[in-house]
Amino acid sequence: MTETCSMELARFAAELEYAKLPSEVVENVRLRLLDTVGVCLASVGTEYASAIADVVRSQGGRPEATLFCQPDRLPATWAALYNGALAHGNDFDDTHSVALVHPSGVVIPTALAVAERTGATGREAVTAAVAGYEVGLRIGMAVPSGFHARGFHATGVCGTFAAAVTAGRLLRLDASHLAHAIGIAGSQAAGSLEFLADGAWTKRLHPGWAAHAGIVAALLAARGYTGPAAALEGRFGLFNAYATPARPDLTRLTSGLGQEWEVLNTDFKPYPCGHLSHPYMDCARSLRAKHQLTPEDVEAIELRVPGPAVPILCEPLADKRRPANAYAARFSLPYAVAVVLAEGQAGIDDFSEARIRDPRILALTARTTYQIDNTLPFPEHFPGWVRLRLRDGSEIEARMDVSRGSREHPMTEAELHEKFESNAARTLPREALEALWEQGLGFDGLSGVAEFTRFLAKS
Amino acid sequence: MTETCSMELARFAAELEYAKLPSEVVENVRLRLLDTVGVCLASVGTEYASAIADVVRSQGGRPEATLFCQPDRLPATWAALYNGALAHGNDFDDTHSVALVHPSGVVIPTALAVAERTGATGREAVTAAVAGYEVGLRIGMAVPSGFHARGFHATGVCGTFAAAVTAGRLLRLDASHLAHAIGIAGSQAAGSLEFLADGAWTKRLHPGWAAHAGIVAALLAARGYTGPAAALEGRFGLFNAYATPARPDLTRLTSGLGQEWEVLNTDFKPYPCGHLSHPYMDCARSLRAKHQLTPEDVEAIELRVPGPAVPILCEPLADKRRPANAYAARFSLPYAVAVVLAEGQAGIDDFSEARIRDPRILALTARTTYQIDNTLPFPEHFPGWVRLRLRDGSEIEARMDVSRGSREHPMTEAELHEKFESNAARTLPREALEALWEQGLGFDGLSGVAEFTRFLAKS
Repeated sequence: MTETCSMELARFAAELEYAKLPSEVVENVRLRLLDTVGVCLASVGTEYASAIADVVRSQGGRPEATLFCQPDRLPATWAALYNGALAHGNDFDDTHSVALVHPSGVVIPTALAVAERTGATGREAVTAAVAGYEVGLRIGMAVPSGFHARGFHATGVCGTFAAAVTAGRLLRLDASHLAHAIGIAGSQAAGSLEFLADGAWTKRLHPGWAAHAGIVAALLAARGYTGPAAALEGRFGLFNAYATPARPDLTRLTSGLGQEWEVLNTDFKPYPCGHLSHPYMDCARSLRAKHQLTPEDVEAIELRVPGPAVPILCEPLADKRRPANAYAARFSLPYAVAVVLAEGQAGIDDFSEARIRDPRILALTARTTYQIDNTLPFPEHFPGWVRLRLRDGSEIEARMDVSRGSREHPMTEAELHEKFESNAARTLPREALEALWEQGLGFDGLSGVAEFTRFLAKS
Repeated sequence: MTETCSMELARFAAELEYAKLPSEVVENVRLRLLDTVGVCLASVGTEYASAIADVVRSQGGRPEATLFCQPDRLPATWAALYNGALAHGNDFDDTHSVALVHPSGVVIPTALAVAERTGATGREAVTAAVAGYEVGLRIGMAVPSGFHARGFHATGVCGTFAAAVTAGRLLRLDASHLAHAIGIAGSQAAGSLEFLADGAWTKRLHPGWAAHAGIVAALLAARGYTGPAAALEGRFGLFNAYATPARPDLTRLTSGLGQEWEVLNTDFKPYPCGHLSHPYMDCARSLRAKHQLTPEDVEAIELRVPGPAVPILCEPLADKRRPANAYAARFSLPYAVAVVLAEGQAGIDDFSEARIRDPRILALTARTTYQIDNTLPFPEHFPGWVRLRLRDGSEIEARMDVSRGSREHPMTEAELHEKFESNAARTLPREALEALWEQGLGFDGLSGVAEFTRFLAKS
């Protein structure tokens, strides 16, 4: 195969060695594994997850891989479809803010399912996951916001390539075969943003479908099936077909590969809702704690918001103040701030159909306004700025320039553990989830990934 | 679900009745079934087909559907992936020239596999197939050449919707659930044209992957999974994301549904190569027969070609005269005409790696030139015009304004039978293929589709 972007990325993925990964990267992937599994466990038993479970379980097949909290094992292709679709269900999985990709929801289910199939060690699975993260994220970074501008959900599109590389690496493909897997993925990449219009469940399908497609691409490439060499940068390649503007920055695709690790620049989520709201929620939380506020103390809430974020977070303001459904509430900044002021927290149950009708919260959203403030450091960071006018006439404010969960403002292991516990406890008994956490912290020492996934099988 | 294009198409598909199908449509679909199966059988055992067979057979699963000439049965999802990928292998499957879609390679494998799963009758399978043809083709017709202009292979893109509708109809989805299946398909539709750069096998994967994805979409919709209502015409819907220019003619999507049948406007292929070459090949064949020509009689070949077809058929001329490989030969007009003049025919073996080096043929392509002639009726038809200067100084010519296999210039049942025999005989013994043909002619009378597919199982 001629030298193309696919081939450069494939060579990086094929040659990546566990021993040369910085310990910071390995530790980060371990926590990402646990965070993602926790997020998945919080979606088990939902309507959308049950629909997918029924479909894949009706397929049957070789018992290669674990479906989280389902009684049967299935081929890695179907297991990754189901597990991947769980990951994005509560909008609680991680985000790379430049690529605008939620990578772990694709990479972790793919790595686990294919590693189970091949009997890989923890180290092999971590190495394959890192290869998948780096390739998928860099494809997104080459056209920042470009897939979204055209109408594609970058998680589905970039995720297909990430999964093909993660799976291909675990299938021990050499660089040439990995490049063909990337080429095949170029004929499978999909994921429409049209769900934004009505909250259809397809958004939740995207990471799972990307994982499914990417694994098929890798399996085909392993058997010698060919894909086009210039699937990314070619005349009819990914960037030209899927991105606006089509001109990609190809240097971001490959420069610094193996030196700079984009997985580290992927933000964990402290709250199960749109990422841009999080620093505002942390501001509200700190004001509430510091001043021991009750909702009744708050006369008015003013949010200072970078202009480009307004259409996502604040407009149409009437709809954002009274979200039509639980899903819309996840993307309403007034709701997100109000729920934290009212409850002191914002967990999965705080975005339920019942909670979004709570008059205490709606009384707060009704008193919420916003001001555009383009001095905030956006989009290189996700900042937040909340001003409250209290009943006693005083004004207080909090500003946070970098979202918690980012590389610059990390969530601590304790915070991630707390998030994991609260998510996993929705499905697993306490002892099992603590055992899972422990096993995950030692994941790269496991001689087989099944030593981890066995805690996820339904007993 | 609100009234959208998806909903209109879904209502048509849900309400379609076998009893109201014109007999011309039913007869046409029967022949299309046989033609497609024959084309599939000609690809069995090729390298690309074997790669896919290995991958899907390694999945295993519920024995729902027949893989053509493979020993095991698999879930409909995997069977349709394999059978669909066979269909496009020799570029011998049918073409709708306005939609630029090869519909049968998706619709027939989907209909057979899902009908086997559900135990449908022949009539139910025919009705479902018609629903799939009409929806898939009209999506293509709404943006003629628009998917190709953006870099997408319309067969893969439109095929995903055709398969979702065919499968959904066989799963007895009502209009609302079918509309959700269309919505889900909008997050799966894919197929890159980048294979044009290097002849990668992804082109052949597209109908099978579309069938696979569409069946998954229908299964998910059957379990209540939701897709966006405006997956086609929405702000981030198919036309805006995948087509250039994005402005679709939405009237073509739905007007005349159930009155005009686009399946009838889909051209059968007399030759296993690019459709635009066919009328030229028929011209060459008639000149050869009428004048009892040998290749040595021909001093020069002049082709008169509509301007827009030149880049596809004739340029770069040096490459078209000496195709680099068997695949490139399928898209070379000089080669296609020369092989007919030399051999009096052009079957699958006439596009082999061996044949394309034949000095008798290359001597003819070296003497081939073309003239642009925009008086030819293109693209509403596929025309052809061949002039030969003979050694004796005389000039002869033949012109055909409408390609054979089209609705206006149909291939006879005898011609289609001959094509079927020659394709199927590459894999099946004579008695089996004749029994298959007979069974196909009575397909809509079968009480179960398995009465047809049993001839396709490996004994």
